[in-house]
Amino acid sequence: MTRLFVFAVALPLLAASPDADIRKVLDEQTAAWNRGDIPGFMAGYADSESTTFVGTTVTKGHAQVLANYKKRYPTREKMGKLRFSDIEIRPLGPDHAVVLGRFHLDRPAAAGGESTGIFTLVFEKSKGAWKVILDHTS
Amino acid sequence: MTRLFVFAVALPLLAASPDADIRKVLDEQTAAWNRGDIPGFMAGYADSESTTFVGTTVTKGHAQVLANYKKRYPTREKMGKLRFSDIEIRPLGPDHAVVLGRFHLDRPAAAGGESTGIFTLVFEKSKGAWKVILDHTS
Repeated sequence: MTRLFVFAVALPLLAASPDADIRKVLDEQTAAWNRGDIPGFMAGYADSESTTFVGTTVTKGHAQVLANYKKRYPTREKMGKLRFSDIEIRPLGPDHAVVLGRFHLDRPAAAGGESTGIFTLVFEKSKGAWKVILDHTS
Repeated sequence: MTRLFVFAVALPLLAASPDADIRKVLDEQTAAWNRGDIPGFMAGYADSESTTFVGTTVTKGHAQVLANYKKRYPTREKMGKLRFSDIEIRPLGPDHAVVLGRFHLDRPAAAGGESTGIFTLVFEKSKGAWKVILDHTS
């Protein structure tokens, strides 16, 4: 009886959590980055004019964010090795979530040196896929 | 007939937009700040342990965020005059929204000088009130 209850109540709750899906997007992003594939990394962002990157300035549009990444990281050496840590996922209703985390870029000094920072990502689920619609990195 | 349609369709849509409610929160925050009332400013944040401020580090909890503001802005002079600009509000379902904007702090050089930056706020509607649950300012 107790086990039946657990299955009946807990399984739909587990299914509703975006946690695993979002972690998979982040893992795919780091894997793409670490093979030098910036367009693959950008597949984690919504393919939309309203996709927003907040750094020292605000950039709008998937294409423009991609262009900025390519400009800032023109070589494998500059891209370094990317790792995320301290990931916290907070669902915001069924189709959105906010993700807090830290990035680490391991690079030799000649390529710009180690780099780290904090990011807030807003994810949206659209057509079954979780994508970043806003990235504030500092 | 057309007018009836407009009333029947457009009014519920207008009522569902959090835009005016969120702008009111931001206006009340700047008014509180500019009368030297940091707890009043903090009334715009959810009174929760999970309320998060992301600056150079991550701070968790309404009380700790309030303490940090009080420590960083101990006098009216240090608080200066606050103004928000470039506000963009994007609803995320019925009970959440993400707000992008810029803050400006006008202060004499002796009090730290002018300061400006970009913020991403995640708002949540709880018990009918919109409150900030995460603030990433850089």
